[in-house]
Amino acid sequence: MQPKFTTVRELYSRFSAKEDLSKLGNIYLSGWIRTNRDSGSIGFIALNDGTCFKNIQLVYNGDLENHDVVSHLLTGATIGVHGEIVMTPEMKQPFEMHVTSIEVLGECSSDYPLQKKRHSFEYLRDEAYLRPRTNTFTALYRLRSVLALGVHEFFQGKGFVYVHTPEITANDAEGAGQVFTIVTPDDQGKMSDTDFFGRRASLTVSGQLHVEAFAMAFRDVYTFGPTFRAEKSNTTRHASEFWMIEPEIAFADLDDDMALMEETIKFLIQYALDKCPDEMAFFDRMISPGLLDKLHRVLSTPFTKMEYTDGIKILQDAVKSGKKFENPNIEWGMDLQSEHERYLTEEVVKGPMFLINYPKEIKSFYMRENDDGKTVAACDCLVPGEGEIIGGSQREERYEILEKKMEKIGNKEGLEWYLNLRKWGGCIHSGFGIGFDRLLMYITGIANIRDTEPFPRTSSQLKY
Amino acid sequence: MQPKFTTVRELYSRFSAKEDLSKLGNIYLSGWIRTNRDSGSIGFIALNDGTCFKNIQLVYNGDLENHDVVSHLLTGATIGVHGEIVMTPEMKQPFEMHVTSIEVLGECSSDYPLQKKRHSFEYLRDEAYLRPRTNTFTALYRLRSVLALGVHEFFQGKGFVYVHTPEITANDAEGAGQVFTIVTPDDQGKMSDTDFFGRRASLTVSGQLHVEAFAMAFRDVYTFGPTFRAEKSNTTRHASEFWMIEPEIAFADLDDDMALMEETIKFLIQYALDKCPDEMAFFDRMISPGLLDKLHRVLSTPFTKMEYTDGIKILQDAVKSGKKFENPNIEWGMDLQSEHERYLTEEVVKGPMFLINYPKEIKSFYMRENDDGKTVAACDCLVPGEGEIIGGSQREERYEILEKKMEKIGNKEGLEWYLNLRKWGGCIHSGFGIGFDRLLMYITGIANIRDTEPFPRTSSQLKY
Repeated sequence: MQPKFTTVRELYSRFSAKEDLSKLGNIYLSGWIRTNRDSGSIGFIALNDGTCFKNIQLVYNGDLENHDVVSHLLTGATIGVHGEIVMTPEMKQPFEMHVTSIEVLGECSSDYPLQKKRHSFEYLRDEAYLRPRTNTFTALYRLRSVLALGVHEFFQGKGFVYVHTPEITANDAEGAGQVFTIVTPDDQGKMSDTDFFGRRASLTVSGQLHVEAFAMAFRDVYTFGPTFRAEKSNTTRHASEFWMIEPEIAFADLDDDMALMEETIKFLIQYALDKCPDEMAFFDRMISPGLLDKLHRVLSTPFTKMEYTDGIKILQDAVKSGKKFENPNIEWGMDLQSEHERYLTEEVVKGPMFLINYPKEIKSFYMRENDDGKTVAACDCLVPGEGEIIGGSQREERYEILEKKMEKIGNKEGLEWYLNLRKWGGCIHSGFGIGFDRLLMYITGIANIRDTEPFPRTSSQLKY
Repeated sequence: MQPKFTTVRELYSRFSAKEDLSKLGNIYLSGWIRTNRDSGSIGFIALNDGTCFKNIQLVYNGDLENHDVVSHLLTGATIGVHGEIVMTPEMKQPFEMHVTSIEVLGECSSDYPLQKKRHSFEYLRDEAYLRPRTNTFTALYRLRSVLALGVHEFFQGKGFVYVHTPEITANDAEGAGQVFTIVTPDDQGKMSDTDFFGRRASLTVSGQLHVEAFAMAFRDVYTFGPTFRAEKSNTTRHASEFWMIEPEIAFADLDDDMALMEETIKFLIQYALDKCPDEMAFFDRMISPGLLDKLHRVLSTPFTKMEYTDGIKILQDAVKSGKKFENPNIEWGMDLQSEHERYLTEEVVKGPMFLINYPKEIKSFYMRENDDGKTVAACDCLVPGEGEIIGGSQREERYEILEKKMEKIGNKEGLEWYLNLRKWGGCIHSGFGIGFDRLLMYITGIANIRDTEPFPRTSSQLKY
């Protein structure tokens, strides 16, 4: 067993509880040196032990047994430290540690890529395996972890059942989008896309179709796992591998769906603010000034609903009044661009909104056809500063209508089981999908999806 | 919005709180018919609403407006019901609902594959999208969901950071095992395994190497996500896609690792017993009699440690004393078979145990070499009734030793970053992996891994 240690998180937690940490006596910490400066008679190390966003300041002096070694330790080195906590109410940090001994547990050579200076996001992306050691990514990855727990607590607190829908699938939910195909060597050693499973298999783009089967048993369900797109688009919002949250609710129409979306977004924002206050303050200060204001406004604003058809009229009127869009040809039936969505949410509604009832031609086959025969009960949730962050819909529960649509687009074969869910005890149901990585971008103000993921995968990027 | 409903879960929860449910007045439920029998003057429906393992009994009589329709409703149909709760302390179920109206929300035709009779696991596997509606799978999938939350609560409660390690990877952690390769069409439409990422990519077999990088920043981390093996072995314990829990702890040796394993297993068993008592009682009654006793014994027993070398001697002595193994050639250096592991844990130790310090030749390159030069600081956790359920090790933290091993097996190229973790602020660290699906087998007594997963993927099986 390694020596019993105290953590910096524990020290801050005891400090918050008004405990006098100097009474702890001699304690043991271990962690990584962020900075080390020594004047000969006195030295200071900023130590991060991994348990807490904050560092602790270690103070050592010249009579340290291995002072010469310690004073030359470089940023990144790993140490174990004995010492006592001294309260410093007059200083920036509320306490520091006066060390009695420092043991070097792992050296760090001078070619360490993370030196004291500030590094660009681009540089750090290239050192993805080291960037969790920087302030921004310490904050980001801890928030990512905490928020993932928040997703589970939210849905399971409401009685939802979590379903591990499969990653390897025989169908591609949307009927669109490029997919990654899976191959294995056959008996002759030749790569085959049918040898292993007996049919063509690809990586899932959505767990929705599978999770619908579970909604017909458990009523309220969700999936939360990796999904994949083989798109070569090199944007700040696209990755080839990303995590999706996909709830599906039975006995629920589009209004129920939107109520759940609003509740979900607000819960997760509040959760981030409550559980990671240091990290959120850091993002507000260093990454996206005004972030906390933006999030608090979302929390206090009821989400507005607007018909797609009304949205088109508003956009057309705006063009007439001189508003410049990159794509100014606004027509009913078109898929809105991000610039259009942002105009509606930022300049018209001035707050979060749902755009609802889209033309059926631009939406997926499984969405419920409205009585007008032209639109489907779909909605996108749009927020200022971002545009779309969730897409959802009521699902087509009527066997004959769904069958005709599937026959038309030609995906019925292999999806008979999905159709059968409408034959054997079906019901009105709805669902939506939130890209977890994009949600993190929104909540942290981080501008590139590559900087929200531990080891991002995009076209041509597979270094680690 | 759909009508406001009460759930069966809520009714049982209020009942447990000693509430008189007959005071609720007229309430609305919706759900699926499990059984329906009618004698003309009185009819009974067992309704499952998806929120609770238990059904609720609905009582209707001949003067129901649509009595003729209702009395002919088949198993599987979806209904919405208005009525009042009547307490029935003298009956098997503590309350029932006397209905005033029943609306048919979704019919179920007579070709529904789940009829009242009991179906075999094999039959249900073939109807994977419907089996969540059966008792066994209602229990199983709810436990799976709850236990997944338990995993997160356990680790995050201890300050661990959850890391979404990538599914698409350029390396296969173990250097062994068959992997699924990913291909996309190139510009000519020909399937290529290098076009998209610029190098060969496959599906991960373990998140360990990636999560180690995060342990060097956050100290205690874990990953919990899908992993893949392209093995054609058609056993009850192998699937091509399964979820793995992989914690990694810094400043921790093999003893710390084993302490965490024991704590993890005991926590998750206790969690299952506490959070899913109805489901666990069902498994004990219907799937694996004696299950609860077995689990309680694990909870109350400290795990034993045994050296691999001692284990070999014990097995050799057993063979000499007449113990019959399918493989009786026990030699130091061999990989133990399941029969050997089970003999040690079931007949020698008679309880959970760790077998430690395995010959280095049969273990992975990243495991820490012991001072004897022959063994590595690896351990398997063995339990009665199952054999191995966890494998773990202390990792090689010494740059030169690890580099030599990687050069020898030829996987250094592309993994320089992994090696560099030992150069820039490395430290003693350890970790382990639990197959979540196998853990579910153990906790439920379900004998086939295909019956623990929503849509299992194995060789030749990709129906849904």
